[in-house]
Amino acid sequence: MTLTRRNFLRSSAVSAAAIAGVGASHAAELPKGAEWNETCSLLVIGTGFAGLGAALESHYLGMKDILVVDKMPSAGGNSIINGGAIAAAGTDMQAKAGIKDNADLLYSDILKAGGGIAHANLARRIADESVSNYEWLRDEVGVNFKAVTYHGGHSVPRSHAVQENTGAGFINPMLAKCKEFGIKIQLRTIVDDLIVNDKGCVVGVKARINHRFNRPDSGKVVYIRATKGVLIASGGFSQNVRMRTSHDPRLTKEFTSTNHPGATGEMIQEAQQVGANTIHMDWIQLGPWTSPDENGFGLAPLAVESMVGYGPMINPKTSKRFIKETGNRKVRADAIVAIGAPAVIFTNEQNFMNKVVGKNMKQEQFEQALKNGVIRKFDDLKSLAEFYKLDYSVLEKETEKFNGYMKAKKDPEFDCMFFDDGVPNEKGPFYAIRLWPRVHHTMGGIEINEQAQVLNVKGEPISGLYAAGEATGGVHGMVRLGTVAVADCIIFGRIAARTANKWAGC
Amino acid sequence: MTLTRRNFLRSSAVSAAAIAGVGASHAAELPKGAEWNETCSLLVIGTGFAGLGAALESHYLGMKDILVVDKMPSAGGNSIINGGAIAAAGTDMQAKAGIKDNADLLYSDILKAGGGIAHANLARRIADESVSNYEWLRDEVGVNFKAVTYHGGHSVPRSHAVQENTGAGFINPMLAKCKEFGIKIQLRTIVDDLIVNDKGCVVGVKARINHRFNRPDSGKVVYIRATKGVLIASGGFSQNVRMRTSHDPRLTKEFTSTNHPGATGEMIQEAQQVGANTIHMDWIQLGPWTSPDENGFGLAPLAVESMVGYGPMINPKTSKRFIKETGNRKVRADAIVAIGAPAVIFTNEQNFMNKVVGKNMKQEQFEQALKNGVIRKFDDLKSLAEFYKLDYSVLEKETEKFNGYMKAKKDPEFDCMFFDDGVPNEKGPFYAIRLWPRVHHTMGGIEINEQAQVLNVKGEPISGLYAAGEATGGVHGMVRLGTVAVADCIIFGRIAARTANKWAGC
Repeated sequence: MTLTRRNFLRSSAVSAAAIAGVGASHAAELPKGAEWNETCSLLVIGTGFAGLGAALESHYLGMKDILVVDKMPSAGGNSIINGGAIAAAGTDMQAKAGIKDNADLLYSDILKAGGGIAHANLARRIADESVSNYEWLRDEVGVNFKAVTYHGGHSVPRSHAVQENTGAGFINPMLAKCKEFGIKIQLRTIVDDLIVNDKGCVVGVKARINHRFNRPDSGKVVYIRATKGVLIASGGFSQNVRMRTSHDPRLTKEFTSTNHPGATGEMIQEAQQVGANTIHMDWIQLGPWTSPDENGFGLAPLAVESMVGYGPMINPKTSKRFIKETGNRKVRADAIVAIGAPAVIFTNEQNFMNKVVGKNMKQEQFEQALKNGVIRKFDDLKSLAEFYKLDYSVLEKETEKFNGYMKAKKDPEFDCMFFDDGVPNEKGPFYAIRLWPRVHHTMGGIEINEQAQVLNVKGEPISGLYAAGEATGGVHGMVRLGTVAVADCIIFGRIAARTANKWAGC
Repeated sequence: MTLTRRNFLRSSAVSAAAIAGVGASHAAELPKGAEWNETCSLLVIGTGFAGLGAALESHYLGMKDILVVDKMPSAGGNSIINGGAIAAAGTDMQAKAGIKDNADLLYSDILKAGGGIAHANLARRIADESVSNYEWLRDEVGVNFKAVTYHGGHSVPRSHAVQENTGAGFINPMLAKCKEFGIKIQLRTIVDDLIVNDKGCVVGVKARINHRFNRPDSGKVVYIRATKGVLIASGGFSQNVRMRTSHDPRLTKEFTSTNHPGATGEMIQEAQQVGANTIHMDWIQLGPWTSPDENGFGLAPLAVESMVGYGPMINPKTSKRFIKETGNRKVRADAIVAIGAPAVIFTNEQNFMNKVVGKNMKQEQFEQALKNGVIRKFDDLKSLAEFYKLDYSVLEKETEKFNGYMKAKKDPEFDCMFFDDGVPNEKGPFYAIRLWPRVHHTMGGIEINEQAQVLNVKGEPISGLYAAGEATGGVHGMVRLGTVAVADCIIFGRIAARTANKWAGC
């Protein structure tokens, strides 16, 4: 039995889209008096890793009239301010550096960090496609990789860092390729409603063009038809305080975020409005490597992830170590929040120059961070202890112990991981950074299957609707490992393009 | 701007209800050719603690024509097979037993177990109303309370057990009162769709009467108008494998559940279809006190919760203790699952007869459990060790240590809590139970505010839609403490009735 009732869409930000019954047999109907202003093939919402990955893959598959929209005035979303490295397991760069790695090891690392709730089918796709994706970025897109780095929680170094040391190293070549291929990228275009036809298929959107982010109601309404469906690649909700406190009341506005201001998650809510399921929404990752001495993502994370394993992380209240420095993000962030005061990590100049400067962090970034007091240089341990008001004799003993563990490559206290090129912290100068976590990544989001199709609350795909990247949940489970999200975004963006390409419409 | 488009509801189980735009100004419209078959004031979905609490409160508030529906052939849902005790903090029974307790202590216990993600405003309501709710049950409903018992994770004994030792001790008097007051309870009535009018208000449901649970498509369609709105009091989703594995892939069909077969959560999904937000869905509680030697909820839990603190819990692989016996449910269940084999808890006859038999467990239940091998009696520790294939000498030492801690009322190893009437386990006979967790309670669910109104994904109430009990999320956060859910269900069921009573319609 099929029943009819009228329904109404609203044009304000608090819109509620209509849901059509799955399997009903009537044709789509646009709002009375409205017409499609524009028709594209795949409509991509978002210009970050996932969105641009999808746009480029669509082009390579031969699709025409791809349209990429973004509500912000500039392209790149949160991706462009990312740390600039991507996980890949079993690459030529790793082989050259003598690192043994493979897809199974990456897969098991993802699942281990996921705490048992990661969706194995999604993790498997990332693990299986990580090398070909890395090669595609290098050979087709023109990304310049320069070094394999280590991030906490991984079994081996497998984070492939770009020359630029930020996500711009991926985004800019991707944008250049879009331009070269004539892929239309339309900024300041915010999507208010997904339009669902009476067969339950997503066939387009209601959006506003010439939107200004700081004026929520601004812009002119347009209807965009998408014959190959709509991809939600619009990122997470780290900057949406109402949304994040609904799932985790601790994350009030008192916590700042590393994210760009547009990470407000409204497309996740819009997907929910058309019946999409959401999962793991309460797993919100704090970055353990941000510094209270600067704002946003900042420069500290570029250094910190290359300092772990090379120097101790100190509890300012005890002057002692308190956690596995190479532990995963959640372990470290939770431990610092539990202390209630910023931790201090340091290493000696030899390690710092060898692992950080000119690696994850450019010379000019290093100088900037020194100037701003984000990184501080101390001639010896005593002056370091004095500056941070640590107990020097306790710190000295802790450092001696840590050096012993470094030499033995075994930490019986906290199981810190060590690397062959680590130099014990026996003499200065030392470089130190204070650490206080920020809201960094929302692991939860829209539930998808391994074809990047959005699933409804019953677990069935919503025809014509895809999602990829931080807007989705399931890949990372409880804990996301560093640089896996970049792989997740690009790989699932590309998968979404393949699924859309095969979609016959509806 | 208000826009029109047609929409279609489906009659099958995979229905997708239409969402009307919030604030649109048109009247409700029933499906073409359909008429309201029946009109009630408040429509209550579910006949468990929350549903019956709401129905009775509605009556006391002077509402007429309350209708309570349940898809199952018998009333009581999962509540009727519950353990039969309710949390209340600061009662006369506690005072008589010399237990000091108050609302603030219950509130802080709930938040502590919630791991930081419980919604404080909801926990506060439960804490503040726990005593008046207990008195209402005793004085108005006629529930017979007999003893204050202890459940793991609480600061003090505050679980008020009923004579019957099961949830029937609440449900049967509640049903009798409903009958006395002429409140209509209609079984075998399954709700397929919430009907939302064009102002965004829930005004009724599409349901099927004469439904048979084992035949999903069975029953005759009816439209029920609800002038005071609809209350979702239909419980959790412990028995819905697709739903629970979507949020926690570990909980495959290999895990059994303590719940009645109807705990399948489709009303949570139906609420999602009309725009409701869900929270904390991945926090699914395993009961640590179920026995692999029986099915369902079984008899073991009645005994185990009164044995903790009176005897050690043993890892069968080491013959040693492994966890705080009085720890919360998650701590214990996770620890047993991590062992990978059923744990063994035991205590001596004196404690067992004093705390279990005739208390949480009736004499005939005790005899039944002995007969079925769920509880086993051993003359001495040696025969207990032999039966469970434990290392006797290790077990003997562990037991001696535990006895010492009992006497000192301090456990330096696992911080187990002890009670004044505990008798050290120095001589037999002993009573023992094997423990293997089952899926017991889904902490997550529909997001509500402290008036039991359902919130949409933007955090705004959906007019005319209420939810209470296990169908909701937020009260318990990460971990639900034993017997707090009964208070949650009845208190929020009653709150929903008060909110509905004040609702002017739409």
